Amino acid sequence: MIQLTLIQLDNYGPWTELLGVDRESDLQILQADIYADLQRMFALERGLVFFNRFDNMLAVSNGMSIKEHEVILRSVARRYPVSISMGIGSAESPFEAQVLATKALQNSGSAQSETRKSIVAHRTDSNSGKAYVQIAHIDINGFTLHVTDRESAYQSTYLIYSSTAVLMRMFADKGALLFFNGGDNFVSVCNGLNKSDFEEIFNRFETSMNMNLKAGIGFGKNALDALSRANEGLSLIRDKKTDEVIILNEEEML
Amino acid sequence: MIQLTLIQLDNYGPWTELLGVDRESDLQILQADIYADLQRMFALERGLVFFNRFDNMLAVSNGMSIKEHEVILRSVARRYPVSISMGIGSAESPFEAQVLATKALQNSGSAQSETRKSIVAHRTDSNSGKAYVQIAHIDINGFTLHVTDRESAYQSTYLIYSSTAVLMRMFADKGALLFFNGGDNFVSVCNGLNKSDFEEIFNRFETSMNMNLKAGIGFGKNALDALSRANEGLSLIRDKKTDEVIILNEEEML
Amino acid sequence: MIQLTLIQLDNYGPWTELLGVDRESDLQILQADIYADLQRMFALERGLVFFNRFDNMLAVSNGMSIKEHEVILRSVARRYPVSISMGIGSAESPFEAQVLATKALQNSGSAQSETRKSIVAHRTDSNSGKAYVQIAHIDINGFTLHVTDRESAYQSTYLIYSSTAVLMRMFADKGALLFFNGGDNFVSVCNGLNKSDFEEIFNRFETSMNMNLKAGIGFGKNALDALSRANEGLSLIRDKKTDEVIILNEEEML
Amino acid sequence: MIQLTLIQLDNYGPWTELLGVDRESDLQILQADIYADLQRMFALERGLVFFNRFDNMLAVSNGMSIKEHEVILRSVARRYPVSISMGIGSAESPFEAQVLATKALQNSGSAQSETRKSIVAHRTDSNSGKAYVQIAHIDINGFTLHVTDRESAYQSTYLIYSSTAVLMRMFADKGALLFFNGGDNFVSVCNGLNKSDFEEIFNRFETSMNMNLKAGIGFGKNALDALSRANEGLSLIRDKKTDEVIILNEEEML
Repeated sequence: MIQLTLIQLDNYGPWTELLGVDRESDLQILQADIYADLQRMFALERGLVFFNRFDNMLAVSNGMSIKEHEVILRSVARRYPVSISMGIGSAESPFEAQVLATKALQNSGSAQSETRKSIVAHRTDSNSGKAYVQIAHIDINGFTLHVTDRESAYQSTYLIYSSTAVLMRMFADKGALLFFNGGDNFVSVCNGLNKSDFEEIFNRFETSMNMNLKAGIGFGKNALDALSRANEGLSLIRDKKTDEVIILNEEEML
Repeated sequence: MIQLTLIQLDNYGPWTELLGVDRESDLQILQADIYADLQRMFALERGLVFFNRFDNMLAVSNGMSIKEHEVILRSVARRYPVSISMGIGSAESPFEAQVLATKALQNSGSAQSETRKSIVAHRTDSNSGKAYVQIAHIDINGFTLHVTDRESAYQSTYLIYSSTAVLMRMFADKGALLFFNGGDNFVSVCNGLNKSDFEEIFNRFETSMNMNLKAGIGFGKNALDALSRANEGLSLIRDKKTDEVIILNEEEML
Repeated sequence: MIQLTLIQLDNYGPWTELLGVDRESDLQILQADIYADLQRMFALERGLVFFNRFDNMLAVSNGMSIKEHEVILRSVARRYPVSISMGIGSAESPFEAQVLATKALQNSGSAQSETRKSIVAHRTDSNSGKAYVQIAHIDINGFTLHVTDRESAYQSTYLIYSSTAVLMRMFADKGALLFFNGGDNFVSVCNGLNKSDFEEIFNRFETSMNMNLKAGIGFGKNALDALSRANEGLSLIRDKKTDEVIILNEEEML
Repeated sequence: MIQLTLIQLDNYGPWTELLGVDRESDLQILQADIYADLQRMFALERGLVFFNRFDNMLAVSNGMSIKEHEVILRSVARRYPVSISMGIGSAESPFEAQVLATKALQNSGSAQSETRKSIVAHRTDSNSGKAYVQIAHIDINGFTLHVTDRESAYQSTYLIYSSTAVLMRMFADKGALLFFNGGDNFVSVCNGLNKSDFEEIFNRFETSMNMNLKAGIGFGKNALDALSRANEGLSLIRDKKTDEVIILNEEEML
């Protein structure tokens, strides 16, 4: 079982319209500040937040209680001109967990409701499965050498966003989630996927995008433990201490 | 003529590897903090920064001098554990301007060079053309109602990233740039495009993605002036004060 | 028993000299950012940080383990150009606890040592006493009405800094600590003080400064619980629901 | 002539009461964030903000227009749950300038008014004098060696706050302003003071506090230029390249 949290800015679109037309730079600062802030607070509980669309963020929140979510929610409400609401979902697959998290929040009202505000929505389902997180840290081979240092900045970015869209679909097809994390880095929340799933995705990616991926995969009770294990694997590949391109760190498998 | 600035974190990838395996949340906070900070500083000079890939950001910097770039660069270097370098380019088309900005920086060394550090790279070309910025603020019709409030958060995000990749290509084909700005919002830096270019892109987008776009387009001496004009147009459409889906605010056309 | 943590920027003075002469605004931003960041991280563990001198901060850290301190220390080291070290001390009186925290850190090297870096220094004393925190939230009666709205901004500030110095000494004489927290607000960490201690201090303060104080005093297992209780008391006085000027909230006394 | 700006959080005290009793850590973060943010924005216009009491900040704003103040004010209003108002004053002496800045703001309403919000208050006086800023950067000799590394953290802080109060009064008596800037550093805005004024203050300080001060003093068209010159002088003393303890950098004297 994995627990995911959807974090949504309350009634954000209509609120931005109230700020006048010369607002965009302030909105960009605000969005980045809120994301950084949430990341800091979730990280102390060993969770991990993905910036996603900035007005809708997804977090792996295994082990975090409703109360811990509420503390974070209130801290944001006190320090920003917009409030946030959260939906929490748990399931065997990461994809299903985010579906449940989304439904919980949607059932509480629209993202542009004027009345839904500072809600933590969740099901009271007893989670019978064993809680764990499986995470992969993925990057593109030689991207700096072959792309960043050669192509235009926009072209490099285009390749990354295209890759993100392609990978998001491929991972979703297997019940996993894929997030772009900056640079040429992707993080997949991938409970239940095995090495051959990754090999299949990486092969299909190479065929369609003509670039090669590598990945470290880790397991843990929470997001940051799992990602740390994943990073250990990826470092082995980056440092050429292995010929594998997918290192599955089973040491901590639960 | 439009001036674009590429902002690149110096030797960022190798540096992150030095931080140990449990680093990801700190990197995410750092990246968002640096972006917010740059946005704040560029905005005071009426520039606009796009987060892009976070380790490589692009900014519209019309009217900003080399010295103003250096002040920002030094302020970052003093307050963060990583430094930034910048490349500046000017051209008639936004696409060409970012090509020149990228080349200027690439000529100074690799993004993963251990020696290139805190550089402002630029050509001394005299810019003979008239300086101006054309910007479009674009969003997807009814996205909250039809997608955010109905589909799973991941599916909504997938549609946005797919749309971004599709639009990035379409705008680049016309010499313009397209950036995802959070939510269902896109900003295009689009000097030289006319209304029919937008109609063509929006039609092709509708065909391939089955979603409809709307846009306000503005002109100005700098990024924020142009974007403010664009927002005026978009507000007219959002408030249903017009039946058009593309409002080109020619009032301030230079 | 109360646990206090001294947080010190490593070799900060000499480092600032390396930044060139036009550095002050960046240093002020950096100092405020680090403080805000530490506050956020300590708060999630129910601790409370006082900005103090900014390069030397004091925190009430009851219940926080060495490992939790180290997580915070590493997060700062990864995101700022300066690192921090910490000294932790526990004692019956807050004053003695900060003496022990300071000594632990001083024994590890000078504040301007080039080699002491990212240290968590602490004694291994078994703490036999019962852990609790007593905190008072204090403000000056009618300060906005009589001072902020009438006197010059500088004169108002002078009265606050003078008051702070006077109160710091009075509380220290009783083994307690007093911090200025912005506005006309003071927070005292005051394990062991009773209501008559406060009455005595407030009377002496009135005599020397010709201003009247009021306070809520609370108890708790950690800083934020104790301060919340203190705020409950202070609100009663501010809302004129009591004639007392010192409310000692014994409900939660341990 | 020097221009000073008083920045006041609107109706801050009553607002904080609405946040519930467990609010203090969030308020501390908020206050530090707003200060850092203002510093960043003023610095780009070569101004300098002093944190002062956090809910009331003072800035040297020479050369900054009303419009530039308004841009900053609006950016804060869009990104924080509290708004700010500003009063601007100009005079030959810094002390008089802050008196005028305060009066302008006080005339617009109380700091705790529910209706005064996002105001920029100023007189329309024509400033006939020549605009310049004189700033001194002051520190205490050997403070790290003799105090920080030897005394308890609280005792060190007590000495700094006592020194601040003493110096604030001494400088005010000469029409200048003195601010504590962290560590053992003070910044004085001191238009009109000459070297003998500093010698007199430093002698009186040594007599009353038994600690010795040193200072670099600089002049400039704006705060940061003047402070940079002051830092040049202080560096000479710190590096023992002079036997003087007060370096008045006349090179840039206007």
